[in-house]
Amino acid sequence: MDDDRWLRTGIGRSTPDAITVRGRDLATELMGKVTFTELAFFLVANRMPSPGEARLFDAALVSLADHGLTPSVLAARLTWTGATESLQGAVAAGLLGAGNVFLGVVEDTARFLAVILRHDPPDAEEAVAAEIAAGRRIPGLGHPIHKVEDPRTPRLYAIAEEAGIPLPHLEMLRAVAEAHAAATGKALPINGAGVAGAAWADLGFAPEIIRGFALLARTAGLIGHLAEEMTDPIGLRLWLDVEHRATYTAEP
Amino acid sequence: MDDDRWLRTGIGRSTPDAITVRGRDLATELMGKVTFTELAFFLVANRMPSPGEARLFDAALVSLADHGLTPSVLAARLTWTGATESLQGAVAAGLLGAGNVFLGVVEDTARFLAVILRHDPPDAEEAVAAEIAAGRRIPGLGHPIHKVEDPRTPRLYAIAEEAGIPLPHLEMLRAVAEAHAAATGKALPINGAGVAGAAWADLGFAPEIIRGFALLARTAGLIGHLAEEMTDPIGLRLWLDVEHRATYTAEP
Amino acid sequence: MDDDRWLRTGIGRSTPDAITVRGRDLATELMGKVTFTELAFFLVANRMPSPGEARLFDAALVSLADHGLTPSVLAARLTWTGATESLQGAVAAGLLGAGNVFLGVVEDTARFLAVILRHDPPDAEEAVAAEIAAGRRIPGLGHPIHKVEDPRTPRLYAIAEEAGIPLPHLEMLRAVAEAHAAATGKALPINGAGVAGAAWADLGFAPEIIRGFALLARTAGLIGHLAEEMTDPIGLRLWLDVEHRATYTAEP
Amino acid sequence: MDDDRWLRTGIGRSTPDAITVRGRDLATELMGKVTFTELAFFLVANRMPSPGEARLFDAALVSLADHGLTPSVLAARLTWTGATESLQGAVAAGLLGAGNVFLGVVEDTARFLAVILRHDPPDAEEAVAAEIAAGRRIPGLGHPIHKVEDPRTPRLYAIAEEAGIPLPHLEMLRAVAEAHAAATGKALPINGAGVAGAAWADLGFAPEIIRGFALLARTAGLIGHLAEEMTDPIGLRLWLDVEHRATYTAEP
Repeated sequence: MDDDRWLRTGIGRSTPDAITVRGRDLATELMGKVTFTELAFFLVANRMPSPGEARLFDAALVSLADHGLTPSVLAARLTWTGATESLQGAVAAGLLGAGNVFLGVVEDTARFLAVILRHDPPDAEEAVAAEIAAGRRIPGLGHPIHKVEDPRTPRLYAIAEEAGIPLPHLEMLRAVAEAHAAATGKALPINGAGVAGAAWADLGFAPEIIRGFALLARTAGLIGHLAEEMTDPIGLRLWLDVEHRATYTAEP
Repeated sequence: MDDDRWLRTGIGRSTPDAITVRGRDLATELMGKVTFTELAFFLVANRMPSPGEARLFDAALVSLADHGLTPSVLAARLTWTGATESLQGAVAAGLLGAGNVFLGVVEDTARFLAVILRHDPPDAEEAVAAEIAAGRRIPGLGHPIHKVEDPRTPRLYAIAEEAGIPLPHLEMLRAVAEAHAAATGKALPINGAGVAGAAWADLGFAPEIIRGFALLARTAGLIGHLAEEMTDPIGLRLWLDVEHRATYTAEP
Repeated sequence: MDDDRWLRTGIGRSTPDAITVRGRDLATELMGKVTFTELAFFLVANRMPSPGEARLFDAALVSLADHGLTPSVLAARLTWTGATESLQGAVAAGLLGAGNVFLGVVEDTARFLAVILRHDPPDAEEAVAAEIAAGRRIPGLGHPIHKVEDPRTPRLYAIAEEAGIPLPHLEMLRAVAEAHAAATGKALPINGAGVAGAAWADLGFAPEIIRGFALLARTAGLIGHLAEEMTDPIGLRLWLDVEHRATYTAEP
Repeated sequence: MDDDRWLRTGIGRSTPDAITVRGRDLATELMGKVTFTELAFFLVANRMPSPGEARLFDAALVSLADHGLTPSVLAARLTWTGATESLQGAVAAGLLGAGNVFLGVVEDTARFLAVILRHDPPDAEEAVAAEIAAGRRIPGLGHPIHKVEDPRTPRLYAIAEEAGIPLPHLEMLRAVAEAHAAATGKALPINGAGVAGAAWADLGFAPEIIRGFALLARTAGLIGHLAEEMTDPIGLRLWLDVEHRATYTAEP
């Protein structure tokens, strides 16, 4: 353990005079010169996005920031009801529900598409058939509310096509949706999480970090909901309403 | 409980055809038209920022996104070491350390300045004297690393002055720093958290939600560090290094 | 930093052959010889409880383990609905709501009583009068559901009186309740969190760690609720029910 | 949604006069009559353990409560360094690291053994051979520190054998270890997490909730460490030590 070379980072450093982020001076090279979106891209990618890439990255973040009173938003607002000393606790509680069932779809879709694209030639029909045979759902297809079309999907495709980059994941996702419809006779829409995951993959990000961008997006939504909870609370009433309506099933 | 009017939100709604955020259609009015920063502002303020306000809001977020291998970053990376199934857990662990000691300063500063500004006329000297008499530290002044000047501070002031808005909190923060130097004979720099808190207050945000923006900023930094941990890990080695060096003080 | 003496712990150590907890061999001195409750006491107090103390500590933990479908239980169950890969995330979300509003009362009560007891002589009436004059609520008094008597309170007093230890905090809590009734003409019951906090203080624990025992108690309740959520889920239906009933207040 | 029967729980209910846990009156039937360990068992199992079962359950909890300055303990102590207003946040951060890599082994082992035991006849050799062929590690075998024998393992086996219950999972775990040694020529010890998971399975718990008991055990350890952090802190020094030693790898 005498050798400390393992203890290293390329992200940030702070000295008495300067703060550096990925090698750039925070005050003179980043503040006022790049947007927060560009910084979030840069922190992971270690390169700045082009304007078209930044617009696509922004649009994907905007698309996933809020989806109403979801389980994770309710968890955050209920947490605030019990612990007003810790805004970070309420935000953390909200993020903890952004897992495999809902927002994890961004990662699952990116991973599924990446596996298909590694084959030569990529074959959407074969991949879809294998998932169907295994009884698995296709990541990125279908939505409990947006049953015909997810309004985010065509819009993000349009923005991606204006970004000036190759879109292998987004194109493959369309091929997957078509292959699924052909194989099952039932067209499922590409959902908003799936299209965002494919877009982030086309921006060059590895599947395992893509869920992080969904978390970043959702953090903005959670802060909006918590600001509302501070002035127009629902958490306490929701608790009392549940207590009032719930049946107690235990036998004495 | 028959009346459900308490169960309401103005943030988001989802119908089969549309997703609405604060009354605007997500796909056609927000995606591709506003940046993620503008959306984060809009979600809390319920109005869009002007370009100058957006630039200031962006710069404050950028200024607080990362500060190197801080306790909260280490907590996030160590959490990932033990739980790679849950990126949201690692991000949440990192946010949980963004409390009163470090990032809470954004809120404390905004609140302290707001109290001064509610007096007629506002009196920085009196407020500073009262804090000194009570043995309390002045929020927003001093930094353990940036002892002479925090490099973020003059830069954020410059960007704020270009934003075209009144800056009562930022101006009062300067008056507070001067009053403190005069009263104690020891000049403490305005720190980066304090200046960001004052800037967010001048953008119209209430003190109690301002910590939320620091959490949003820090989320981007955490994702950068977790992406690095996935490819160039330090968590496991840090644990073994601590175990190796630690003294066990219990007596049998 | 050459001197590593700061990096020390008296809690636990692990070598190839043995695991030691506070100086005792885990396998031969603790497993099968002490209960989990005794270990939890020992970990903080650095001494084993007497049988009477262990029974009181147990009873206080049992008293706070569950209180039905509280906000923090709902948050945990909703979190599980979105993230079934991470049971630790759901438990963490449930604990994050155990803050100042509800379970923090254990700590607030212990601290309030400790301050009174440091005076010579302690004066409940004066302390209560000061709180009333300042417009503050007395910690440990009153409950939104148990308005006349909290059923946990007389029971925990009885168990404490059988523990064979001095009970200055519990006795002072009674004096505080009487002083409050005399001063306001309105008798408020001592609540379950307050009595548990006073009992833990009488067992010798400092106010700042007492909230930790409430968290330990609540963890058991959360695991019970999450086990139920796995077989008889309510989270998803609760979300859909809220979505169905909620009014959307934003104007286009 | 008119029908509220979905909104039900058998865990807890609170009325003005009584608190009920799984159908038993909290004050008169549980407090002072059952230990916290028995309550934790009862909350999930919906039956009280026998004395032998309670002793085994206690011993398994005791065995996993602490393992020194682990990543999750360090995360909790670092979180406290930044957020002293929220003990629940520090405990939550510590639990978030108790995932698949370390404590998740309790669940993985229980699940692996349950699958083997569902076959008729169960065949440890075949199951081990299948895992080896797939390049997977056998859950519950091997430990980075306790390379020859984990001291918790023989002790928990002895306590289990005194509990007066059938031990199919614990017996199968031994058969698995032997099959693995025979197949690879390399004996790996049964680790403490594996043996605890098998013991909880033999007590009748489903694999998916078993991680919850490891979280409960770890909560007690975390509270011990956080109590120590309050009086003998290491978090801040650990941060400064890391900052001091770390290499910054970014190029300007």
